[in-house]
Amino acid sequence: MSEIKRFAIMGVGGYVAPKHLQAIYDIGHVVIAAMDVNDSVGILDRYFPKCQFFKEFERFERFLTKEKREGRGIDYLTVCTPNYLHDAHCRFGLRMGADVICEKPLVLNPWNLEALIEAETQSDHQIANILQLRHHPEIAKLKSKIDQSQGRHQVILNYITPRGGWYDVSWKGDKTKSGGTTTNIGVHLFDLLLWIYGPLEGVVSLDNLPRTSLGSLRLHKADVQWKLSIDFAELPNGQPSLRQIICDGEEIKLDYGFDGLHKVCYERIVAGELIRPKDLRQLIDLMHQLR
Amino acid sequence: MSEIKRFAIMGVGGYVAPKHLQAIYDIGHVVIAAMDVNDSVGILDRYFPKCQFFKEFERFERFLTKEKREGRGIDYLTVCTPNYLHDAHCRFGLRMGADVICEKPLVLNPWNLEALIEAETQSDHQIANILQLRHHPEIAKLKSKIDQSQGRHQVILNYITPRGGWYDVSWKGDKTKSGGTTTNIGVHLFDLLLWIYGPLEGVVSLDNLPRTSLGSLRLHKADVQWKLSIDFAELPNGQPSLRQIICDGEEIKLDYGFDGLHKVCYERIVAGELIRPKDLRQLIDLMHQLR
Amino acid sequence: MSEIKRFAIMGVGGYVAPKHLQAIYDIGHVVIAAMDVNDSVGILDRYFPKCQFFKEFERFERFLTKEKREGRGIDYLTVCTPNYLHDAHCRFGLRMGADVICEKPLVLNPWNLEALIEAETQSDHQIANILQLRHHPEIAKLKSKIDQSQGRHQVILNYITPRGGWYDVSWKGDKTKSGGTTTNIGVHLFDLLLWIYGPLEGVVSLDNLPRTSLGSLRLHKADVQWKLSIDFAELPNGQPSLRQIICDGEEIKLDYGFDGLHKVCYERIVAGELIRPKDLRQLIDLMHQLR
Amino acid sequence: MSEIKRFAIMGVGGYVAPKHLQAIYDIGHVVIAAMDVNDSVGILDRYFPKCQFFKEFERFERFLTKEKREGRGIDYLTVCTPNYLHDAHCRFGLRMGADVICEKPLVLNPWNLEALIEAETQSDHQIANILQLRHHPEIAKLKSKIDQSQGRHQVILNYITPRGGWYDVSWKGDKTKSGGTTTNIGVHLFDLLLWIYGPLEGVVSLDNLPRTSLGSLRLHKADVQWKLSIDFAELPNGQPSLRQIICDGEEIKLDYGFDGLHKVCYERIVAGELIRPKDLRQLIDLMHQLR
Repeated sequence: MSEIKRFAIMGVGGYVAPKHLQAIYDIGHVVIAAMDVNDSVGILDRYFPKCQFFKEFERFERFLTKEKREGRGIDYLTVCTPNYLHDAHCRFGLRMGADVICEKPLVLNPWNLEALIEAETQSDHQIANILQLRHHPEIAKLKSKIDQSQGRHQVILNYITPRGGWYDVSWKGDKTKSGGTTTNIGVHLFDLLLWIYGPLEGVVSLDNLPRTSLGSLRLHKADVQWKLSIDFAELPNGQPSLRQIICDGEEIKLDYGFDGLHKVCYERIVAGELIRPKDLRQLIDLMHQLR
Repeated sequence: MSEIKRFAIMGVGGYVAPKHLQAIYDIGHVVIAAMDVNDSVGILDRYFPKCQFFKEFERFERFLTKEKREGRGIDYLTVCTPNYLHDAHCRFGLRMGADVICEKPLVLNPWNLEALIEAETQSDHQIANILQLRHHPEIAKLKSKIDQSQGRHQVILNYITPRGGWYDVSWKGDKTKSGGTTTNIGVHLFDLLLWIYGPLEGVVSLDNLPRTSLGSLRLHKADVQWKLSIDFAELPNGQPSLRQIICDGEEIKLDYGFDGLHKVCYERIVAGELIRPKDLRQLIDLMHQLR
Repeated sequence: MSEIKRFAIMGVGGYVAPKHLQAIYDIGHVVIAAMDVNDSVGILDRYFPKCQFFKEFERFERFLTKEKREGRGIDYLTVCTPNYLHDAHCRFGLRMGADVICEKPLVLNPWNLEALIEAETQSDHQIANILQLRHHPEIAKLKSKIDQSQGRHQVILNYITPRGGWYDVSWKGDKTKSGGTTTNIGVHLFDLLLWIYGPLEGVVSLDNLPRTSLGSLRLHKADVQWKLSIDFAELPNGQPSLRQIICDGEEIKLDYGFDGLHKVCYERIVAGELIRPKDLRQLIDLMHQLR
Repeated sequence: MSEIKRFAIMGVGGYVAPKHLQAIYDIGHVVIAAMDVNDSVGILDRYFPKCQFFKEFERFERFLTKEKREGRGIDYLTVCTPNYLHDAHCRFGLRMGADVICEKPLVLNPWNLEALIEAETQSDHQIANILQLRHHPEIAKLKSKIDQSQGRHQVILNYITPRGGWYDVSWKGDKTKSGGTTTNIGVHLFDLLLWIYGPLEGVVSLDNLPRTSLGSLRLHKADVQWKLSIDFAELPNGQPSLRQIICDGEEIKLDYGFDGLHKVCYERIVAGELIRPKDLRQLIDLMHQLR
């Protein structure tokens, strides 16, 4: 029987936090402390009603320090704050003597990644990046098919998930905070492409418009035409979103099957199967090139 | 065929905002602008993807001023910000030439109410307070039964809706911002009691503990024993919440039937049937007495 | 004997606020209320120890509303908040039934100016912009000399006032908030040029670097070469700043004589001599063109 | 010739920061990085125009981490943030491999002090608390006189330094953030009393009013009557402040001689003469008792 792990979570008031709370809950662990600058966090009661909540980093740090001094330190820190804060919060988790589980993108820039790899090396703990789409059933099938295939493939990726004007006003619309759409939304997709068809051999073309980006990549096993957009005008008539990978003319739809992927990630991580900072060098380099 | 009304909403990032968005959407009107200091507001896309969003009051004011100058002013301002900001935001709506729909409690103190009544009088517009429980089917039945009854009633009110530690850290836990539990949660229930059994003849007893309050009231048609709590320890074994009114020994359960009540409120308000500031003097006085 | 005027001030925690407090104090008036999101405002005690202070706009609004209802409304609202908030705060002052005294630049964009002119027209009150350099003794002399002169002049303007890296990180470094260096620092100087040599006949050239801007203007009475910079590297050896206007080869130094200019502005304004929004159309247009 | 030490400073936008900048400047060291949530920090240019500034803790952390990785870590972190953040920021300094210089009061509660002592023990670095009044010339004289004296003394301490209403609205007026007046203002004075006449034998009486506190202490060498106030009404006619210690009927005035005391503190600290957390147990205990 495995022991119950103690988690803390940063960014609990944001959009993605419920998926983490649900995953931790589902696999039987416990969140003992949470923080967010936004105090609209009633969601905590659904999963962990005894969780301590903090609006200020310093009070959160004080609480975790006290718990640790008294022999009740956390095992894991989950980081789902805005992207540009990830590396600082990951380092904080390591310093508190915890392993870290961090939302994507792990960091914005290659130099942030190297700093994090160094911090991880100097600690006794590890950082795991959440890239849940690798566990999507259609993706898993595609990956195993390509692994067994010979020759190059022709791949078209379209990912049109419109967002209203709020997106541009929020931190997600600030390139220095989110990395922009290619990073914030695209990181998943470029990770899949590299994972399945990589490594990268070159960025062939690139066109960054305000709410749409597109380009082509040369990967070891594929030529890829990609397009990412948060613009309603890019959608085919009447559809709410378009998420497709077309490989050699065969379409893979990604509009379903997302539920529960965070749980799979958490199970793998707790079992010791991690996507670590050092595994992300090529991805973070590519994100950087695409800006 | 009625015309489409233009709404703006303040506090769109908070807990109760989705109910307002849903209600406005359901009755066929449109939200053109929204603001919140918290930018986690993707919910807007579900209802009004073309809505403008603002993180700063001043930019929101500028946009609404521009719309008004160009003949596209808003018809309604919906206010679902923290309680202590309600009166300032209601006055802002009136100044922008709009009617105002405001979450409960309308204000924290009797003097805030008088200032708001005066502002309303000096404008050509009106303020409507949302008190949706009056439209709950069980409550409507009770109200009509009591209206036809003679004599006094014995009423017990228990409202135990536990909240975790985050509640105390959030603005809801700050008495100067929320009015405390008796106001923030209790305002609904005291409104029902006054509406059905009132007017108030006296506060007989009162006991305010940190997370629980209880007391007894003498109303024109009833003696009331009430208890409000956000403490898990107050719950009967295994229940997630307890919401009951026992009138002359007969229990009315309020644990269901909340869905859609905001829609009813909006329909009534747009039809001109309002609970206005001047209708709330007794309620706000009572809230003030109970602190 | 003139009566004591009642002031409120927004932005009291910022860099320029002490000049306003000093001016109001020196001419014998009183500040009854102040607000800033930053609470490091001990400066108030030096001038107006009985002043009420507010960290939140809504509580400030509530206090001023109460004062007004009780017949003690403010006569003037002084606005020294970040530039992009000026117009919203000016409108707030008008709505509170006060005249407004606003720091430069009054607004960032021509359309903001028109909205403000309209708001002023619809109120019984006026907005005065602070442009204190017009009262600098050297400038007054130059103005009267040019007024009496014939023909065109050759003018060189150099204004090098270095700022450290904090400037770029602060709201002053955010073009959407300050208008950038040409607006935030340059507005004074372009106002002087237009006032003395105007009106504008054309922007001949323009070069905007990150921390330095330069260009040439054709004015009715002069050809102007200007350079503005906040870069230490632009300074002549060993000098802390360079502020000069060279008119037909004759240098006017602006490195002294700034003390007390706000007081002169306040005296003029209270005496009814205002620089009003409608007087600023050409200046705000030019600022807009230079971005 | 001593080497130039590299400093970073947190809380650079606040009231006391200029004294630290001046002291560091005067003794020939350099501030390379500063942070504050408030960006009105032009003061930096007067001392350290090349200093990097950050509005967010995480970006400050990232910069200091980078500097450290590249062999240019800081020697000292100066902490002059609001009191309740001191311990978290001190721990941050230790984790960054720096010695820490922290404003008074070092912490608010005895348990915060123990946690800090433990953190210091586990690091290779030290924390120094600024208590500059010990270096005041009158205090130094008194200390040496009492050290040589026999028997008990009768001491009256009056410290009336009025503050306007802003004080109560600011973090200084929030007991959970400042510790209240007895802590925020009194910590200096109680430190002197304990240092000169201590150790503490008992708190004889105590009266805490909203803006005034008073009481009596039994110290090893003295009976003390003390009064602290920020209320204008407590002042003798016409005086701006009253700062006096009356020892056996002889008055020591503390209304002058404050300039340069921070410089003395910094000189001593850099020379290795520190007031460390473990030296403050009695003082922090007393502060706690007085609340």
